[in-house]
Amino acid sequence: MASVTMSMLEAYPKSINLDRAKLAAVVDTLNSCAQACTACADACLSEDMVAELAKCVRSNLDCADVCTTTARVLSRHTGYDANVTRSLLEACATTCRSCGDECARHADRHEHCRICADACRECERACRDLLATIS
Amino acid sequence: MASVTMSMLEAYPKSINLDRAKLAAVVDTLNSCAQACTACADACLSEDMVAELAKCVRSNLDCADVCTTTARVLSRHTGYDANVTRSLLEACATTCRSCGDECARHADRHEHCRICADACRECERACRDLLATIS
Amino acid sequence: MASVTMSMLEAYPKSINLDRAKLAAVVDTLNSCAQACTACADACLSEDMVAELAKCVRSNLDCADVCTTTARVLSRHTGYDANVTRSLLEACATTCRSCGDECARHADRHEHCRICADACRECERACRDLLATIS
Amino acid sequence: MASVTMSMLEAYPKSINLDRAKLAAVVDTLNSCAQACTACADACLSEDMVAELAKCVRSNLDCADVCTTTARVLSRHTGYDANVTRSLLEACATTCRSCGDECARHADRHEHCRICADACRECERACRDLLATIS
Repeated sequence: MASVTMSMLEAYPKSINLDRAKLAAVVDTLNSCAQACTACADACLSEDMVAELAKCVRSNLDCADVCTTTARVLSRHTGYDANVTRSLLEACATTCRSCGDECARHADRHEHCRICADACRECERACRDLLATIS
Repeated sequence: MASVTMSMLEAYPKSINLDRAKLAAVVDTLNSCAQACTACADACLSEDMVAELAKCVRSNLDCADVCTTTARVLSRHTGYDANVTRSLLEACATTCRSCGDECARHADRHEHCRICADACRECERACRDLLATIS
Repeated sequence: MASVTMSMLEAYPKSINLDRAKLAAVVDTLNSCAQACTACADACLSEDMVAELAKCVRSNLDCADVCTTTARVLSRHTGYDANVTRSLLEACATTCRSCGDECARHADRHEHCRICADACRECERACRDLLATIS
Repeated sequence: MASVTMSMLEAYPKSINLDRAKLAAVVDTLNSCAQACTACADACLSEDMVAELAKCVRSNLDCADVCTTTARVLSRHTGYDANVTRSLLEACATTCRSCGDECARHADRHEHCRICADACRECERACRDLLATIS
């Protein structure tokens, strides 16, 4: 089923310098990762061992903010500056890598960290794939 | 297919005072509406008649911000204050109503406004439905 | 010294239905409260007794998101819908009250909670004062 | 007068790898730039010649989002990943440069663009200065 992201891109009135289906998939992946990270931060705060998860909460909060901002910037098109898109995708891939690594350390004890680590890995890949088509 | 929102709620380690499936659906609807509004603002900026759409751009930007924030607050659970949730859901329903009305005025000329108006209507309904189970 | 908020409001090309100096002060107060809450959440995560502060972290994160969104919506003017502004200011005042109450419970042990509680009280007042001039 | 950012950093319970006064100044500069950009986007939407300012609105919205996210990430400390901070500061400097260039093109006709261009220049400098102390 097409996401609203794809429907909106199909309705876009001007040309876009990127493949619309690919772009929609990246934006959806970014939004899913942001949601996973926001939820994982809160789930970590509910664990009895929260003191050991403080770094994970921080990584989650950073990653949620960066993914949300990257999805927004990728949703603005005409006249865009490729330097902005590229540097932000690089920052987002770096942030997803860092958060994915941290969540992966707790993945065997906490299902929410396992799911979130997967979301971060997928999002890092999506950012790097899109970067490859821009550079 | 289950969204990451639902998977994360199922992995939540503590009890939640709301029905998890319903809550996941509302959060997904909020995130979709935010995405539609961000994209509609940008599509409006690409229309030749942008001067007539300035109010629509503003409504879209407000609605995107309010929906994103509401989704985040609904994704934080234990120890939550029902007054915060309730007042924010009311503000979000009001914002979606206002943005949906504005987009609907341009729906027959701009497909992106038509899609966005639908997303706002659905989101307003979702917020009011959830409100009814809290109050 | 005038903030950039006030300078930008003075440069606004159309009329605004609210007193510009008062509006600038509220926006600055909202942004300061958002910053205090973001910082307090992180300071709480650094405390050895973080497990007792989990609710405070959540309140801080909610309040930061709501204040940032409210400041953004108040920074968009012409053609605005008073219902949106009003309901969001009410939600923001409610959120600041809730976060201020939670921070106040830890204010004698944690200086960051004391400062943040003050920021939330001031922000709640600013929202209610502005509400009084709109309703 | 000390900002709430500096007061909160002074109350931080653990060590921070950066100079606190410098860090507070950068965070305040980021938040001011975000506010200038949000306000400039809206002022542009109120200009009769908005069609010529569509790219400026987009740059403003991108810059507001990136500066807000960068300020939040810089407000989270212990256990931080320098790669995340560094790549995000680089993306933020690039975004401020792009937005400052665009606003500067309209600075002689629109006072709000002149003020916003200055805010972007100052923010770009602040990001690059902080980067120089991290790398």
